[in-house]
Amino acid sequence: MAEKAWKNNVEFRPHFKTHQSHEIGSWFRECGVDKLTVSSVQMAQYFAEDGWGNITIAFPLNMLEIAEINELAKAITLNVLVESKKVLQFAEDSLQSKVGVFVKIDTGYHRTGIPIDNLDEIDKLIKCFSGKNKCQFKGFLAHNGHTYKASSIKEIERIHFNTLDKLKALKAKYIQAFPNLTLSLGDTPSMSVLNDFRDIDEIRPGNFVFYDLMQSNLDVCLEEDIAVAMACPVVAKHKDRNQIVIYGGGVHFSKESLKINDQIFFGKLVLLENNMWTILPRSYYLTSLSQEHGIIQLDKMMINKITVGGLVGILPVHSCLTADKHKFYLTEASQTTKKFHP
Amino acid sequence: MAEKAWKNNVEFRPHFKTHQSHEIGSWFRECGVDKLTVSSVQMAQYFAEDGWGNITIAFPLNMLEIAEINELAKAITLNVLVESKKVLQFAEDSLQSKVGVFVKIDTGYHRTGIPIDNLDEIDKLIKCFSGKNKCQFKGFLAHNGHTYKASSIKEIERIHFNTLDKLKALKAKYIQAFPNLTLSLGDTPSMSVLNDFRDIDEIRPGNFVFYDLMQSNLDVCLEEDIAVAMACPVVAKHKDRNQIVIYGGGVHFSKESLKINDQIFFGKLVLLENNMWTILPRSYYLTSLSQEHGIIQLDKMMINKITVGGLVGILPVHSCLTADKHKFYLTEASQTTKKFHP
Repeated sequence: MAEKAWKNNVEFRPHFKTHQSHEIGSWFRECGVDKLTVSSVQMAQYFAEDGWGNITIAFPLNMLEIAEINELAKAITLNVLVESKKVLQFAEDSLQSKVGVFVKIDTGYHRTGIPIDNLDEIDKLIKCFSGKNKCQFKGFLAHNGHTYKASSIKEIERIHFNTLDKLKALKAKYIQAFPNLTLSLGDTPSMSVLNDFRDIDEIRPGNFVFYDLMQSNLDVCLEEDIAVAMACPVVAKHKDRNQIVIYGGGVHFSKESLKINDQIFFGKLVLLENNMWTILPRSYYLTSLSQEHGIIQLDKMMINKITVGGLVGILPVHSCLTADKHKFYLTEASQTTKKFHP
Repeated sequence: MAEKAWKNNVEFRPHFKTHQSHEIGSWFRECGVDKLTVSSVQMAQYFAEDGWGNITIAFPLNMLEIAEINELAKAITLNVLVESKKVLQFAEDSLQSKVGVFVKIDTGYHRTGIPIDNLDEIDKLIKCFSGKNKCQFKGFLAHNGHTYKASSIKEIERIHFNTLDKLKALKAKYIQAFPNLTLSLGDTPSMSVLNDFRDIDEIRPGNFVFYDLMQSNLDVCLEEDIAVAMACPVVAKHKDRNQIVIYGGGVHFSKESLKINDQIFFGKLVLLENNMWTILPRSYYLTSLSQEHGIIQLDKMMINKITVGGLVGILPVHSCLTADKHKFYLTEASQTTKKFHP
């Protein structure tokens, strides 16, 4: 991803909410990355402590965390997201240091931001930056989260270029007043399938660091590209229904699910050996989760290969949510490495 | 619940996986409770540290945690769950202190345990206790988790009494060989709606301490009985679609959902004031969750009452999973109280 960014001459500001790890952050540093994105103030603190000096908190500014934001803004180059005059004015009145402010644009995902076609409201907010001292308008930031529901690569591309056309028009409108205006985009599906990042100034994908079954199901990656699995103890075997019970439940995986061929599942079985995993020729799914238990549906052949007291691997449906629940990773080199866990 | 247990002359061993809190545990102690249930070895350690001397780990014994189980068994009266000869023999060979062993019976939930109609396999396992020194057969333990899918109180009662008939027959078969044989049952739906605990020796409900929308939707409690809510900052308002965005996502709530009238939701809005909450006359639901964001669908009237920068309350769909994600509770007395958070 870094190579693609450099080749396209765009800034690479990877989202670290997926891995939340100093060590994995250091791998990015080795690739020349010097800025990052996070989804919470606490996560920004965690990476600032590790020496990262340029962080965007890609979540609408939470007025109740202004004290912590002030601390951060004193120490590092900080960007925040704003989508209303009220919050912008509050930030200007409360901040003691300068921050970069991205205006969040809703490009069709309908989660946060000013709708991209509401030019009037966007314009009113941009005008409010005039005379502001602490809040420096930085550009427009969007997240095409609706690519996660795309049914083909073509649809992902269509969403991306459609969004981009409108963002380019916005940029053209304000570039004279704000010569450094940045267009920041960043969902993993688009950034993975596109090779051409023309007209974008900055990309912020995050999930690609691990990928997961949601992404492989979208054809954004192969299952072989998934870079994280959960190691789960096998605690019971039920031969009458070809099921095993693992120590791994909703509190370990999250309850994010996928539905394929009318089958809902929460993960997929891989075999663990020597700190590596092997993808099986057949698909066996984690079909049920309670607080601590998970149930994997096997068949007659497979159940004989699994031992109570052993470990199995599970590829997660949504790696960000699964990784979030844990304090440590175990690397292939069998080293334990800590992660953010507030 | 304690009163009901004492009145019925049954042992009360509440499940503490719902609250996971020393302070809430102390409220049980004040009611005369001296034994409890947990769902993990770490949770048992957490409560043992707080002076609880009699704990059942209601999860199939995980052979990979035998060192920690040994530590606990040295310090307190510990009960574990077993459902196979292999694990029983392993426990007998590995333990240095005596533990009570419940045989887990599957009464129709099909998660763990020996199917209650498989008398042959149950008998084989019971016979294995003969000559065991560390593993003391304690009784039969079951969890009627399928009551969570019942469509009426009547159905909950039917599941309970159907199970109980079969468990009574099992008890009758083995009571001479094991005069202290305990029948332990414990789902919150049954324990809440029943008043007659005849023929049970021990009950282990947990969720009732908070209840949640899943339980009120089952008519097991009223919404007014729900005793925990999440306080979430409002970070954005979208009047065009009558939605607000809260700081409260999948990592804070879990992604457990409920479906009522074809509407999927993850929580329900209540108003927060003075450390109390008020149930609203109309239902407004948390309809969407991403990692950190939640979206609440309001109407024109309600959206005008909500302020960006303020707090709203959300009743959780599944209080056990939501509470698990947090380190602290705030009580009505405005005191912060720590909880288990490994």
